[in-house]
Amino acid sequence: MDSLHARYAEVRQHTLALAAPLSDEDCGAQSMPDASPIKWHLAHTTWFFETFILERMERGFAPFHPAFRILFNSYYNGIGEKHPRAQRGLLTRPAMSEVRAYRADVDARIGRLLASELDAARRGELAMLLTLGMQHEQQHQELMLTDVKHLLAQSLLRPAYNEAPLPAAAAAAPLEWLAYQGGLTDIGHHGDGFSFDNELPRHKQYVAPFALASRLVTNGEYLEFINAGGYFNAALWLAEGWDWVRAQNLKAPIYWFQDEQGAWQEFTLHGSQPLDLNRPLTHISLFEADAYANWVGARLPTESEWEYAAVESPPAQMFGHCWQWTSSSYAPYPGFAAAEGALGEYNGKFMLNQYVLRGSSSATPEGHARASYRNFFPAGARWQFTGIRLARR
Amino acid sequence: MDSLHARYAEVRQHTLALAAPLSDEDCGAQSMPDASPIKWHLAHTTWFFETFILERMERGFAPFHPAFRILFNSYYNGIGEKHPRAQRGLLTRPAMSEVRAYRADVDARIGRLLASELDAARRGELAMLLTLGMQHEQQHQELMLTDVKHLLAQSLLRPAYNEAPLPAAAAAAPLEWLAYQGGLTDIGHHGDGFSFDNELPRHKQYVAPFALASRLVTNGEYLEFINAGGYFNAALWLAEGWDWVRAQNLKAPIYWFQDEQGAWQEFTLHGSQPLDLNRPLTHISLFEADAYANWVGARLPTESEWEYAAVESPPAQMFGHCWQWTSSSYAPYPGFAAAEGALGEYNGKFMLNQYVLRGSSSATPEGHARASYRNFFPAGARWQFTGIRLARR
Amino acid sequence: MDSLHARYAEVRQHTLALAAPLSDEDCGAQSMPDASPIKWHLAHTTWFFETFILERMERGFAPFHPAFRILFNSYYNGIGEKHPRAQRGLLTRPAMSEVRAYRADVDARIGRLLASELDAARRGELAMLLTLGMQHEQQHQELMLTDVKHLLAQSLLRPAYNEAPLPAAAAAAPLEWLAYQGGLTDIGHHGDGFSFDNELPRHKQYVAPFALASRLVTNGEYLEFINAGGYFNAALWLAEGWDWVRAQNLKAPIYWFQDEQGAWQEFTLHGSQPLDLNRPLTHISLFEADAYANWVGARLPTESEWEYAAVESPPAQMFGHCWQWTSSSYAPYPGFAAAEGALGEYNGKFMLNQYVLRGSSSATPEGHARASYRNFFPAGARWQFTGIRLARR
Amino acid sequence: MDSLHARYAEVRQHTLALAAPLSDEDCGAQSMPDASPIKWHLAHTTWFFETFILERMERGFAPFHPAFRILFNSYYNGIGEKHPRAQRGLLTRPAMSEVRAYRADVDARIGRLLASELDAARRGELAMLLTLGMQHEQQHQELMLTDVKHLLAQSLLRPAYNEAPLPAAAAAAPLEWLAYQGGLTDIGHHGDGFSFDNELPRHKQYVAPFALASRLVTNGEYLEFINAGGYFNAALWLAEGWDWVRAQNLKAPIYWFQDEQGAWQEFTLHGSQPLDLNRPLTHISLFEADAYANWVGARLPTESEWEYAAVESPPAQMFGHCWQWTSSSYAPYPGFAAAEGALGEYNGKFMLNQYVLRGSSSATPEGHARASYRNFFPAGARWQFTGIRLARR
Repeated sequence: MDSLHARYAEVRQHTLALAAPLSDEDCGAQSMPDASPIKWHLAHTTWFFETFILERMERGFAPFHPAFRILFNSYYNGIGEKHPRAQRGLLTRPAMSEVRAYRADVDARIGRLLASELDAARRGELAMLLTLGMQHEQQHQELMLTDVKHLLAQSLLRPAYNEAPLPAAAAAAPLEWLAYQGGLTDIGHHGDGFSFDNELPRHKQYVAPFALASRLVTNGEYLEFINAGGYFNAALWLAEGWDWVRAQNLKAPIYWFQDEQGAWQEFTLHGSQPLDLNRPLTHISLFEADAYANWVGARLPTESEWEYAAVESPPAQMFGHCWQWTSSSYAPYPGFAAAEGALGEYNGKFMLNQYVLRGSSSATPEGHARASYRNFFPAGARWQFTGIRLARR
Repeated sequence: MDSLHARYAEVRQHTLALAAPLSDEDCGAQSMPDASPIKWHLAHTTWFFETFILERMERGFAPFHPAFRILFNSYYNGIGEKHPRAQRGLLTRPAMSEVRAYRADVDARIGRLLASELDAARRGELAMLLTLGMQHEQQHQELMLTDVKHLLAQSLLRPAYNEAPLPAAAAAAPLEWLAYQGGLTDIGHHGDGFSFDNELPRHKQYVAPFALASRLVTNGEYLEFINAGGYFNAALWLAEGWDWVRAQNLKAPIYWFQDEQGAWQEFTLHGSQPLDLNRPLTHISLFEADAYANWVGARLPTESEWEYAAVESPPAQMFGHCWQWTSSSYAPYPGFAAAEGALGEYNGKFMLNQYVLRGSSSATPEGHARASYRNFFPAGARWQFTGIRLARR
Repeated sequence: MDSLHARYAEVRQHTLALAAPLSDEDCGAQSMPDASPIKWHLAHTTWFFETFILERMERGFAPFHPAFRILFNSYYNGIGEKHPRAQRGLLTRPAMSEVRAYRADVDARIGRLLASELDAARRGELAMLLTLGMQHEQQHQELMLTDVKHLLAQSLLRPAYNEAPLPAAAAAAPLEWLAYQGGLTDIGHHGDGFSFDNELPRHKQYVAPFALASRLVTNGEYLEFINAGGYFNAALWLAEGWDWVRAQNLKAPIYWFQDEQGAWQEFTLHGSQPLDLNRPLTHISLFEADAYANWVGARLPTESEWEYAAVESPPAQMFGHCWQWTSSSYAPYPGFAAAEGALGEYNGKFMLNQYVLRGSSSATPEGHARASYRNFFPAGARWQFTGIRLARR
Repeated sequence: MDSLHARYAEVRQHTLALAAPLSDEDCGAQSMPDASPIKWHLAHTTWFFETFILERMERGFAPFHPAFRILFNSYYNGIGEKHPRAQRGLLTRPAMSEVRAYRADVDARIGRLLASELDAARRGELAMLLTLGMQHEQQHQELMLTDVKHLLAQSLLRPAYNEAPLPAAAAAAPLEWLAYQGGLTDIGHHGDGFSFDNELPRHKQYVAPFALASRLVTNGEYLEFINAGGYFNAALWLAEGWDWVRAQNLKAPIYWFQDEQGAWQEFTLHGSQPLDLNRPLTHISLFEADAYANWVGARLPTESEWEYAAVESPPAQMFGHCWQWTSSSYAPYPGFAAAEGALGEYNGKFMLNQYVLRGSSSATPEGHARASYRNFFPAGARWQFTGIRLARR
């Protein structure tokens, strides 16, 4: 087994490991249109390899099941029809056992394709597509955790995904401001490693001098914002954020609640826990992040500032805690060109009314993120592992 | 085991038998807010016995699980909080295995209660409540079939609930009109047998002379209505029905569709089938039933007419094929009084903006229905086994 | 001018008199889809005469304006297209001056038609249609007052439609129960006078013995219900009513509010007034009426009971104060047949999910109502002059 | 009368002139929540001077009417309560005559304030606020035309705002590509003239070499896109745009329609007109603009590119035809700081999920726009005078 195949097997196996603590029943439910059932993630990531690799490159290709082409297509209009997104939770058929068989079948066929004789061009294309598929599957690995957390949070029983105890966070260091010089800089991916198309092309950006917070905002700091009436002070919020927060009568982050004694609790993948004041705040919308930044007299960084700092002299907690909202709308870099065909729908068509997040979270697979990585969500998204890195002049 | 206990065991066992062809995954999904997951039906019917019998009569009562009181309460405000109806499909916990254990536990405790020493008054109350609980469970047995049919119909795979072939219907007899004299009649349940509170009190109604169709309307007859443009002729429809049919752009009954050759198919519990023109039409809203009746120059019967005929000299197909829409709104009989406490919510509070159906369907459990039985649904309901019995002067 | 013409002129004049206190600006606005602008009422009632009389009977008929056929058609599918109901407030053209000219033109042409030579059959048809048109216009006269009241109530300025002071109500008499024998009775219009088709045919109904309250429920009595927490007690409400009242967080009748000192005020056509505890309660939905009746251990009358009493020995306040909700859904009388053609849409197609009101209100034109008159609205309607007459066994 | 006062009088008079062709009825209606009645524009612009100048600077200030503070507040939370935006069409009171009196009263008081003795600081503040108020009123002058056009377009009568004939456009010149060098440039307002806060601070931006189209896209060019199926080709649209266009089943720009012979017409302020193929396309959403640009293999410019070109060597039709969508989301310039207090709500809080438009339109008042001016609307806005300037590398 060559190293590409080994890497493939490892990624695929990790996906199954993430589903392992869950019953088949758990894997079928969809808690909101933005989230997907675990079963659907398992099948869609497999569909990606079948559709974009086997269908192109396998001799005598025949689909595992003809209906899967529709059922597990997420948003690729170039491929054809799609099962309605909001009804993924109704797919009790195929059963989990059939989806597992689908995964095994595609894995075996990918293995045979890798072992077959291919000319250099075809082998290069295969390596490129396999790598894209693995990166794609890693993105879904994170979504599996955000989606199952959202599902379990709907339950009165507040079940834990992970029965192990949640370790306490270390005491938060004092927040300091790290100054950056800026100037005319190069932004975007470079080098030989993998990147998504939205990180390219590398291009020049002028970045004015700025400062970045030495660490993420903590739960304890955000609690002060709540206690100071932050959720009820219109002056702190964007107009759309104020409508959003009042229409839903929000008073705290999505997974925070007060117990009968008024003590703050947080629902986590380890079940409900007393709020840990030292832990980096997460599950925050851009609206909340922006209001908090206004309250402390700071602002969110732009994505260029964030990337510049991450390369120059990164502060603590840039990766592995939570994604950090930037004030940058998700837009094509100058000279961006989407790929030909359906794969060109991967990123480009979402570049509107979404905002860029940088870094990575505790749910991001090892080795997936990098300084040029651009994650993106609408301003009201709260079920992702998203937090706040402050910036100022 | 006395006969009441035997009857109880039989009803409870039948519920499990209805769920037997389904996987745990199938049992968890909810296809629309009006329908419930099979797992929820299994638990709610058990909750009914636990809440209305064990909680009142069991010595040292302790609930099987305290959260179940909320999770499986359907609509009894007198009992307290309820899990939101539209989110029953998110209850991946408790697992099916736990719900089966819940059923077994309640069944055992009911058995012990029946075997215990009780004075005559308590025994009478127990028999009354057990009977109500069994009748309630039988109602849910029918809903399990309507709800699972609706769920399976959402699937591109169009899976069959029952793999056995669906037998063809016998040729439909010519439709004839049976004349009834009417007069001052007694309507409502009488005698010693069980009835729901909404069938009482028996009271006088004046019924003018009328005629009833000798059988139900068939699929073939309804297809003529479709082919004659019935769905696009405003003059045939109630104002609200016309808005309803146009807003959804309806063209046929809910489970009818045309295959690629234009041939009509019907989705059934046995999977998709060529439309059987002889079979009584079913899954029809009151709006469609009323428009059809207008088209043939007839009308729907009132519930008094239907009951009078069912007692006097019933036409064919009154029971066991499909529920028959009447033109009567669901209203209390003169002198109706709901029971005290939460059980009083069983029927009375729904007596508004719903219409009465009479008879029973192919999905109604053996022995459940009777001439005075009042089923009821809103005018737009289509997922029940509902059809058309015509009437005229 | 013959008496029919004189009556016509009087009705038409009264409509203009109702609009007289309002500016052209007031006449154009639509406060909700259920209400219409005054200008639209002025035009639609004129359209009715033009469409159903002049278009049929006028030699060389040409419409006043071809677009008016669409703009001022309310709901007659048989006539053709309609301007969308919810956008009647956008009809700034035609101007009020043009609508007044439209009225004058149609009035003149009706006058000429009446003065022309017609055979007896034609003259009879004309008299029948003119009478229907006048009755129709009288219905809109009441709607003009309900709709302008709703519009003015939206204003922070709380302007008065009528600047004259509102006289205080006389002290309410003690509420007594009047007993009625009932039996097999005749219900529906009889005699030579005008009636709408929905009051026919006269038919037999069995009415069990019952009692009716000697007067309407007062504001003061309803305030006790509010103070006793009636709006927050689920046990008093129909299921749909409870959803309705909680979804909107209702706490009082639509035009009641508390001033800064907590004193109850009521918005009236005479502007805001201190709540008059002696005045018959009005602007109540069926949901509220039913909950109140449950609270006092009574119920609403059926429409047969109401009509029987109104003929036999009517209690006080049956007419001229407010319409009285009955528990009867609006349904065709046995043998009901709608008229041929578009006029058949007048009543019949609305006989679903609406409830019958009997009597008449302070806004009903003199001489318009009668014992057999059937008004109808959905259970949640609150902007009409609707109140409560209690009944019991 | 000094020049500031003269300028004030001129701006205020122009607003009244724009309303002159309209009746009081026309001035009251609101065709959608995004648009406002003309009467509301007349009052709100007056409210701006009363609230931000007279209330601060007038000795013994008393409001013209206390309720106007709420009724004509658009979105300033710092001022207090607001009349609900979607219900501005229900404000039949105050009458137009009262709003005209309000305008005259505020104008007189502003005149007296200008004529009073003020120290230099106060006079400077007054001049600054008056200038802001006039610029604000000019923005509403354009909105009056977009909003009344939208209102009149709802009418079956398709009335003209301007009865004069619409002159034909000159033949469109061939579209050429003008190349720009770019580099590290200064973006944002500079100099002594007025600018809004969102044009500041002037700051450095790196602009890569690019080309701009020599003129705007014409109706004729866009018609080719329609005829080529552009509205039905998912590959051309942003994901959100595709959902938007299909959900509404859009097939052409908002004011385009085909007559009974299939010929394209356009509704204009001069009434319906045959589509003028030479005229610059307008009333286009960003979604449509982006799809069109994709179809011709070009893209929209960034706002920096647009401003750079406008300063360096502007192509034709940059100003006075229609606003030009850019691909830039509306965001604060580096170092942006909103004003203190309620005036700080003018621009900053809208910097999310909106896109920048540059240039000016045929409806923009003379002298209002400039190269650094930033207009902004959500991507789906179509009722503004918005068109397409293409860019490419």
